Amino acid sequence: MTVKVFGSPASTEVARVLTCLFEKDVEFQLIRVDSFRGPKRMPQYLKLQPHGEALTFEDGNVTLVESRKILRHIADKYKEQGHSKDLFGPGALERASIEQWLQTEAHSFDIPSADMAYSLAYLPPDMPLDGRGVGLPAAGMHPSHRQKMEEMLQLFEKSRKDLGKLLDIYEQRLGEEEFLAGSKFTLADLSHLPNADRLAADPRSARLIESRRNVSRWWYTISGRDSWKRVKELQRPPSAEAPF
Amino acid sequence: MTVKVFGSPASTEVARVLTCLFEKDVEFQLIRVDSFRGPKRMPQYLKLQPHGEALTFEDGNVTLVESRKILRHIADKYKEQGHSKDLFGPGALERASIEQWLQTEAHSFDIPSADMAYSLAYLPPDMPLDGRGVGLPAAGMHPSHRQKMEEMLQLFEKSRKDLGKLLDIYEQRLGEEEFLAGSKFTLADLSHLPNADRLAADPRSARLIESRRNVSRWWYTISGRDSWKRVKELQRPPSAEAPF
Repeated sequence: MTVKVFGSPASTEVARVLTCLFEKDVEFQLIRVDSFRGPKRMPQYLKLQPHGEALTFEDGNVTLVESRKILRHIADKYKEQGHSKDLFGPGALERASIEQWLQTEAHSFDIPSADMAYSLAYLPPDMPLDGRGVGLPAAGMHPSHRQKMEEMLQLFEKSRKDLGKLLDIYEQRLGEEEFLAGSKFTLADLSHLPNADRLAADPRSARLIESRRNVSRWWYTISGRDSWKRVKELQRPPSAEAPF
Repeated sequence: MTVKVFGSPASTEVARVLTCLFEKDVEFQLIRVDSFRGPKRMPQYLKLQPHGEALTFEDGNVTLVESRKILRHIADKYKEQGHSKDLFGPGALERASIEQWLQTEAHSFDIPSADMAYSLAYLPPDMPLDGRGVGLPAAGMHPSHRQKMEEMLQLFEKSRKDLGKLLDIYEQRLGEEEFLAGSKFTLADLSHLPNADRLAADPRSARLIESRRNVSRWWYTISGRDSWKRVKELQRPPSAEAPF
């Protein structure tokens, strides 16, 4: 066995790669390092890194650290095995479309969706988010805390605006085709899973998906894949929820 | 941070060490390696190793591989911290008693309890285990499968006999004292947790504990410790139960 993944499945970067390995039935080893620091529980927002965490991928003498490069490598090298033979397209035409949506994900979806999850992990669930960023109570808050909260409210608003515009384009596209790059599930869809899952996990961001009929149908389909369910199971403890 | 544990929390050897580290609030890193081999689910009995799995413990320039040696090291080096300062005794007298029960666990409890869990993982839950080892159906079984089953039935019977005798001694001892080595929770009790938990997890072996009043009370007390609950949580996925 030569494929090794170093990292935590709680990281969106790592989760993206694991999903692809499960799709392609590639045998691999996952090497994860968890740090335990006494009895205290880390607040949720400290566990989330705004833009990804450490990931290293080894396949024989190939070493890669960028998740989407790793997806392309796996889909090409293990093309003939697994559930989906055409994750990166049967031909050049399809590949161009997959590549385009893969880049849309990397450049326009990844950052605002990670920002949104990050800001929501910080903002209390009962804080009103009315779209004008005026959810902060008038008093009774330490200035440094208030400053961080205001920053998080702004981050939330900006990501909501950016994602809203982007998902309107997705909504239109997914009205024409079942999946982003056409009639088949491909790397373009797969690459969205980890961050879309973070959006879907919080009612305050899930609305972005649920309010769009085609995006909802697409999310329901892709998040139901066995590969993703296996990754979700790996994400549970100890990183996602610890009993202390 | 200098303490590192290499291994899977599903291993009883590793679980023993993790419990001790949590008891003593020692900061550490857990480095685990999980292997994934395509979509097939491994049968439960293949996941269980009869007598422990790989474990390596590093603390600065100390490297140890035997779990009970590691317990002694942690309890001594980190004596003054954590929930229990006297895990390995406040003095020589207590230590002698702890050491005696630690050795009873290592030499008389560990192997039959691991054997029992191993054999039960192999034997179907509905197979009658009537104490005479005659639970096998007369026909309709491949000879090599039948041979393995007969071997497992014998292993079950032998471990039941050995554990029964041993737990009668525990029952008496735990009628005199709250814990094995006296009035306090020590390494002697801690060391039993991983294998006793395997017994408690299957109704066919849990009877060994439940039918003894003092052993039951002791098991209820020690298995309720936060340190052990944290280890149990770590044991869940991916090794214990996977959704495929």
